[in-house]
Amino acid sequence: MTGAEILIKTSIESGVDVCFANFGTTELNLVSAQDSVPGIRSVLCLFEGVCSGAADGYARMLEKPAMTLLHLGPGLSNASANLHNARRAYSPMLSIIGEHALWHRQSDAPEVMDIETLARPVSDWIRLAKSPDTISHDTASAISSSMQGNSATLIVPQDVQWNESLNPLIESAKPHIEPVDPVNINEIARVLRGGGRTLMVLGPKSLRENGLKAAARIRTKTGCDLVSETFPARMERGLGIPFVDRIPYFPEPAFDFFSQYDSIILVGAKSPVAFFAYQGGRSNLLTESHNIYALGSRYQNLAQALEMLSDTVGARNQGFMAEPDSGSQLADSLPTGPLTAEKACMVLAALQPEGAIVVDESVTSGFAYYQAASCAPHHDWVPITGGAIGQGMPCAIGAAIACPDRPVINFQADGSAMYTLQALWTQAREELNITTLICSNKSYNILRIEMARSGQSKPGKAFKNLTNLDRPPIKWTQVGNGMGVPAVSVTTAENLSKELSRSLEEAGPHLIELVLSS
Amino acid sequence: MTGAEILIKTSIESGVDVCFANFGTTELNLVSAQDSVPGIRSVLCLFEGVCSGAADGYARMLEKPAMTLLHLGPGLSNASANLHNARRAYSPMLSIIGEHALWHRQSDAPEVMDIETLARPVSDWIRLAKSPDTISHDTASAISSSMQGNSATLIVPQDVQWNESLNPLIESAKPHIEPVDPVNINEIARVLRGGGRTLMVLGPKSLRENGLKAAARIRTKTGCDLVSETFPARMERGLGIPFVDRIPYFPEPAFDFFSQYDSIILVGAKSPVAFFAYQGGRSNLLTESHNIYALGSRYQNLAQALEMLSDTVGARNQGFMAEPDSGSQLADSLPTGPLTAEKACMVLAALQPEGAIVVDESVTSGFAYYQAASCAPHHDWVPITGGAIGQGMPCAIGAAIACPDRPVINFQADGSAMYTLQALWTQAREELNITTLICSNKSYNILRIEMARSGQSKPGKAFKNLTNLDRPPIKWTQVGNGMGVPAVSVTTAENLSKELSRSLEEAGPHLIELVLSS
Repeated sequence: MTGAEILIKTSIESGVDVCFANFGTTELNLVSAQDSVPGIRSVLCLFEGVCSGAADGYARMLEKPAMTLLHLGPGLSNASANLHNARRAYSPMLSIIGEHALWHRQSDAPEVMDIETLARPVSDWIRLAKSPDTISHDTASAISSSMQGNSATLIVPQDVQWNESLNPLIESAKPHIEPVDPVNINEIARVLRGGGRTLMVLGPKSLRENGLKAAARIRTKTGCDLVSETFPARMERGLGIPFVDRIPYFPEPAFDFFSQYDSIILVGAKSPVAFFAYQGGRSNLLTESHNIYALGSRYQNLAQALEMLSDTVGARNQGFMAEPDSGSQLADSLPTGPLTAEKACMVLAALQPEGAIVVDESVTSGFAYYQAASCAPHHDWVPITGGAIGQGMPCAIGAAIACPDRPVINFQADGSAMYTLQALWTQAREELNITTLICSNKSYNILRIEMARSGQSKPGKAFKNLTNLDRPPIKWTQVGNGMGVPAVSVTTAENLSKELSRSLEEAGPHLIELVLSS
Repeated sequence: MTGAEILIKTSIESGVDVCFANFGTTELNLVSAQDSVPGIRSVLCLFEGVCSGAADGYARMLEKPAMTLLHLGPGLSNASANLHNARRAYSPMLSIIGEHALWHRQSDAPEVMDIETLARPVSDWIRLAKSPDTISHDTASAISSSMQGNSATLIVPQDVQWNESLNPLIESAKPHIEPVDPVNINEIARVLRGGGRTLMVLGPKSLRENGLKAAARIRTKTGCDLVSETFPARMERGLGIPFVDRIPYFPEPAFDFFSQYDSIILVGAKSPVAFFAYQGGRSNLLTESHNIYALGSRYQNLAQALEMLSDTVGARNQGFMAEPDSGSQLADSLPTGPLTAEKACMVLAALQPEGAIVVDESVTSGFAYYQAASCAPHHDWVPITGGAIGQGMPCAIGAAIACPDRPVINFQADGSAMYTLQALWTQAREELNITTLICSNKSYNILRIEMARSGQSKPGKAFKNLTNLDRPPIKWTQVGNGMGVPAVSVTTAENLSKELSRSLEEAGPHLIELVLSS
């Protein structure tokens, strides 16, 4: 077998069954190997940021890696922004990067780049494959690391791909989850019983139905409060699932929020920090006055840890506050008239069906959505994690391929959408059930808010020019149709309701441009 | 003055007058400074790969840097593929990357990345600005480095932007060109007079009219041959300018080509290597049997070096071979019938006007263009240099802004165009005189050629799936119109001639989709 075939076979044996790819000459053998060793579905993306974003979406839904196949340093560069988002989501990522033959790497040929250095800021695990005799071990090691919620990058020179290993041993990777420590559970239970105002900060993987229900039981039993990280990888939400608010995005209200508490229990979450720095501000949202505890780590089953904690504090049969059941009210009172961002949020929350996956990169247009969607049917909410815009449309691809029987709705800001709009083509090609709602406010609105916050003198010509997307207006219906996604434009809440309902009934991708009034 | 204002003022004093930007919260002060210290034209690009590609195009035409303003690690990641192309073109590049405040960098906030490491593979010069008191020196140093044909990256934390320096000394950068060494000129002249078959390999900056004419006089006088690097940054071409062929792209004909020669004179060129590795191949196109000499370096005025060499070998008044004047013949015999890639090349070469800038990322569709365009009117040819596709459309923006009175024609492959198609929006916004010819062959055709070359068994399902762009077909007229660029589609050579002529007569950008028959 060739090294390329061994890599593919090892991946298949480890459960990898999808490859988001945009390859070049240096990955030719890795593609041929997908033909000689079948078992991986190859999905073509017309830009590598779509590959990595799609793999992130797939990983967030299935908690296992897809493969991304990328061409040399340029391919990795293009993938990196969404690899960063994936890292911040702790998504299992497996990036396979082709490389010039080992004997050609030192040639400084035109497309030579230092791939290992490029990979470092977006990878938790990096290796250069050296031989077909060791590539099965390399691949299995990459996948094992990936399965722990890491971004694993394996760089594979052409000669390692095309050379043969005579009797290759095919390894396979198995997921490894660290056990929960009962001693720590008892310690946290003591904190909860100990009085003082206590807050549990729910991190990745605790935000599933069973974890949230256990946390809610603990809340009712002990009087603690709950909060989620601002941008978690995925949260199960909707009617019947306890509502948990998020840490405020801007640091001032976040400081105020945390100042209410004596003790902070981090449930797999990192100690919270401000997203951006502001003059006279600080990074840490917690202070020396807080007692800080950790319930487990992200390498553990945190929902199980919460259930154990619930039992330990005697909350196993505890009822918990259900959110106000206003879902049907929402549907009865659909907004009307010229479409605003807030009305769009209400329409989406009211009409999104049971089991929806909502990939949310709506930025400022979506401010009202999180609250409203607590009354929507059971769904998954998948926001942007690392601040690298252009995540939503690719992520929707991965979610739709991971969960083909569930409707995917991408609630998407226009400025961010432009970053990876090539994703629409793959949505059409793969006939994915994705409805994209483009919030067309024709501006980088978040920057106008930041400008107002900064206290600087009023915006000048350069600032206005660099935040304004209305000249020319992007005609999203033409862009969507041009890439094979049926597209319509709506200017009223009624039409949004009508078009959203219709698109959810039809198979395949749809795009709805939401022309927003302010 | 704030650090941000000092940076902008230093840039203006050093002759920087254009900024290709996509900024975020961490660059707010740098944008405000462009309002308080006017003198820079800000150009909004809706993806950072467009910013860097545009700055590259600008630099190739004017041989001085534009500024690119990028947001943190994600912005730099997105810009990196075209920064790589720019490095391979030795374009003067000035990348200004915002960074979190120095006190916030260690917070590991969601958008924190290791920007310095990310920058290393795409930069020749990197610095983290530490204080407003030193930022003028930092900026001038970056621009000085840039002016030598380097990619300079200055990382500017927010607090360095917003803090003030009371009595700042504003430095300014001046271009520095290393003098030509007359001793070396004499040495090369001896080689040329010494017999044996001699080849001069023309590198960057020698491919201007005066350099090419000097080289052609030397060729006539001494009997040496001339060749250009395969992918130079820019070449002046057309009627009256000596024709120079390029080093063959594939290594086998390149080996054969060089094997004819005893002595190789590198005119600012690197020792030539194969673009990609192939089984049983090698990197170096030269062997131990070649005598290798260097006429100057890329830091020198190589056209001047060639003129000095021409004088030294007694060729000052030497005539030189003019290319066959078949320009008018080309125009008289415009091709007709269903459009093929070759016919497209002929139409373009026949109709491109005097002074055109042809940004060429036509890949396999453009095989016939280089030869044909030797008979076109005087023009600049600007190809992709580093193999990172998605260079053409952004590069055209920079060329059009650098040379507003010249028509820019972007001869563009469809697969590559998809990488940075956001460029069309900026072309429309800035009303640039760019005609984009999209060669729609609906495939990654180069990979089919490489597959055939590889000798592997016939292409399987994965290979076909990952090289085929025809399902769905990209409707480029809709994509273009959707971003504000008037667009038409042509299927015959006659219609291409008609639409190309028309678009060149009208101001502003145009897109023509060339539906190619094979």
